Amino acid sequence: MIHETAVSTVASASREIRDFILSQPELLARQSYKWHLYPAGVIAACVADMDFRVAPEVQSVIQYGLEKSDYVYPLRDGRRADRAVAAAFAARMKHGFNWDVDPAQVLVVADLVQATYASILAFSEPGDGVVLQVPNYPPFREALEVTGRQLIPLEMEWTDEGYVFDLEKLEDRVDERTKLFILCNPQNPTGRVFTRAELERVAAFAERHDLIVVSDEIHSDLIHPGATHLPFATLSPAAASRAITLNSASKSFNIAGLRCGLVHFGTEALMQRFHARIPIRLTGSVNNVGIDATVAAWTDGQAWLDAVRVHLLTMRDYVAGILRDEIPEIRFHVPEATYLLWMDCSDLNLDGSASSFFLKQARIGFSAGETFHPDAMNFARMNFATSRPILNEILERMITAVRSLRR
Amino acid sequence: MIHETAVSTVASASREIRDFILSQPELLARQSYKWHLYPAGVIAACVADMDFRVAPEVQSVIQYGLEKSDYVYPLRDGRRADRAVAAAFAARMKHGFNWDVDPAQVLVVADLVQATYASILAFSEPGDGVVLQVPNYPPFREALEVTGRQLIPLEMEWTDEGYVFDLEKLEDRVDERTKLFILCNPQNPTGRVFTRAELERVAAFAERHDLIVVSDEIHSDLIHPGATHLPFATLSPAAASRAITLNSASKSFNIAGLRCGLVHFGTEALMQRFHARIPIRLTGSVNNVGIDATVAAWTDGQAWLDAVRVHLLTMRDYVAGILRDEIPEIRFHVPEATYLLWMDCSDLNLDGSASSFFLKQARIGFSAGETFHPDAMNFARMNFATSRPILNEILERMITAVRSLRR
Repeated sequence: MIHETAVSTVASASREIRDFILSQPELLARQSYKWHLYPAGVIAACVADMDFRVAPEVQSVIQYGLEKSDYVYPLRDGRRADRAVAAAFAARMKHGFNWDVDPAQVLVVADLVQATYASILAFSEPGDGVVLQVPNYPPFREALEVTGRQLIPLEMEWTDEGYVFDLEKLEDRVDERTKLFILCNPQNPTGRVFTRAELERVAAFAERHDLIVVSDEIHSDLIHPGATHLPFATLSPAAASRAITLNSASKSFNIAGLRCGLVHFGTEALMQRFHARIPIRLTGSVNNVGIDATVAAWTDGQAWLDAVRVHLLTMRDYVAGILRDEIPEIRFHVPEATYLLWMDCSDLNLDGSASSFFLKQARIGFSAGETFHPDAMNFARMNFATSRPILNEILERMITAVRSLRR
Repeated sequence: MIHETAVSTVASASREIRDFILSQPELLARQSYKWHLYPAGVIAACVADMDFRVAPEVQSVIQYGLEKSDYVYPLRDGRRADRAVAAAFAARMKHGFNWDVDPAQVLVVADLVQATYASILAFSEPGDGVVLQVPNYPPFREALEVTGRQLIPLEMEWTDEGYVFDLEKLEDRVDERTKLFILCNPQNPTGRVFTRAELERVAAFAERHDLIVVSDEIHSDLIHPGATHLPFATLSPAAASRAITLNSASKSFNIAGLRCGLVHFGTEALMQRFHARIPIRLTGSVNNVGIDATVAAWTDGQAWLDAVRVHLLTMRDYVAGILRDEIPEIRFHVPEATYLLWMDCSDLNLDGSASSFFLKQARIGFSAGETFHPDAMNFARMNFATSRPILNEILERMITAVRSLRR
């Protein structure tokens, strides 16, 4: 439903847009990983944050805390402060999906990579198998390596209609030592938003093989018109009974550095199994600023988010149109969600990796395909959550670099 | 050496004091646990934070981040942001104690309770024994209960000269299943700062029984004149080889809610043993604001800290003098560090616990003795890190309540 709201607020959004987009000097004044990763002159289009200011509602709560020096042990609404995040998430899920979340089944954590490690350690043993959609967000693969779990890859396969996955190909690869299914929905890097039918196939597969489903839904607030997000845990009580949902305001509200995310357990029994291995204090307390920013974002930040989504949609279609016209060798599917474009550059017949080509020849820093999949060196991931001038510069540099190849 | 600096800056400190002390209305405007735990009208003197503003240098970095909306994935000085905390800690330890800390052996975490759980899980098994000085910071005891470790209590014993501990009494209680020694230095709640001789006895005991020493030194910046802090890991290479040091700017700079602390491993081998059980990403990423505040505090906050310490010393001696004159039934040792007074109210011959007496009869919220030790219901812990007017009110209410007993 969220995308309809967005479309209906284009008028007010266009006013807002001027306010949140940062210029390149402003971007360089931030101590961001994205804009300081490469030598001067390289345009950063990699790390998944946005070249935008945060919502005014988020700024306000941070300003309030600063004025009061309110950095001591916190209460919020008379309760442990992290409960405010759980309550705001529950209210948001009720409103967006008519999903009744019990805040008592929400664990607030610093980040979702932490949550992924914790889930892997809680629900499997070294040597156990974990299904992961590939290409994948790189820390997922790293988590399996570090914890000694076996990666069972579920390929996202190119079709003319979009990326799909085929669970039947996994039937022979999973056994009683396969314990988890890491679902990323919307999927990073392909931008797929899975349909109810696809998710039901995942649920049936998980049921058949008795798998816990860790559903990373961090991009679920960045859905473009035409797609609808469905939280995995809402599919059925059976699905919920094996669902660990990960979410955060960090991507959609551009506050990844404030480190506040959450784990929702589909049942109390799942939560108890988790805490038998991972004591509640082991994952650490979440900071006041992250808590307040998250609550403000989810509770009062919708107008800002709607305006951002209108801008992202415009940029997505702009990039797609230019690339199709000017560099048809680059194959891609327009993402159904996220501000990330997964570009297959195989037809450019490059000598090295796609990302190193664009870094050297175009002075653009894309995320390297091979960090998402060892076989994907011909791929690069573009982050288009920026201003139109910066995007124009990226596209012009790409076109020039590719032209030099054709000569 | 730090206390001499403090004494020498009394003049400039007295100017600063006006700036950092908050009035009761300002305190109530903060969403703090401390001031909202009790019904209106109760004076809070419990939770270990200070009724002060944060240092101007800390405010400045938070203000900078706010102006730039710098809440995206961070770099600091071209490195992963948490490395700035490790570097600031190393510089501070070198300056304060001529201790050469390798920043590579520093893990930045959200809080020291998390660090304690992680250390217990990394270096022991369920059923193993852990030595803990009692009375103790309540989460330590809880950590042993939650993780199923055996508490081996080392009593802090009253003598006329101060609280002491006798390791010989433990010789029969430890065995090959005893794995850890949780040292809290300066000790909470007694305020003891252990001497070199005492620490060397701990080190020899740990060596003899092959124990890992988890040394919580969070109050080490709040030492009063006459005492000298000695980091456990600096005693000897042998001590360092079994030392896990926990520290944070959170107590001394009043930023507990910003959730930034650290674990220092005395050797690389210790760090590897830790990470074999606790992957680095399991403890989570630390937020930008906490990182920047900690670095600013440790690097540029000394003048503020010196001024705060002068005020705390004045308040400590003021409280001690009034209590000795007016309520001699309350026995205590003046704390050598911290802003916490551990009051033995046994001679008041109360019916219930000391904290409930003062809550009901004086409308003061002290920390309950029994949360520090099951046998300590006659004790209460006072937090005197507040303004003189609030402290006067606390003392007057205490005197009135005790007078009513004498009638």
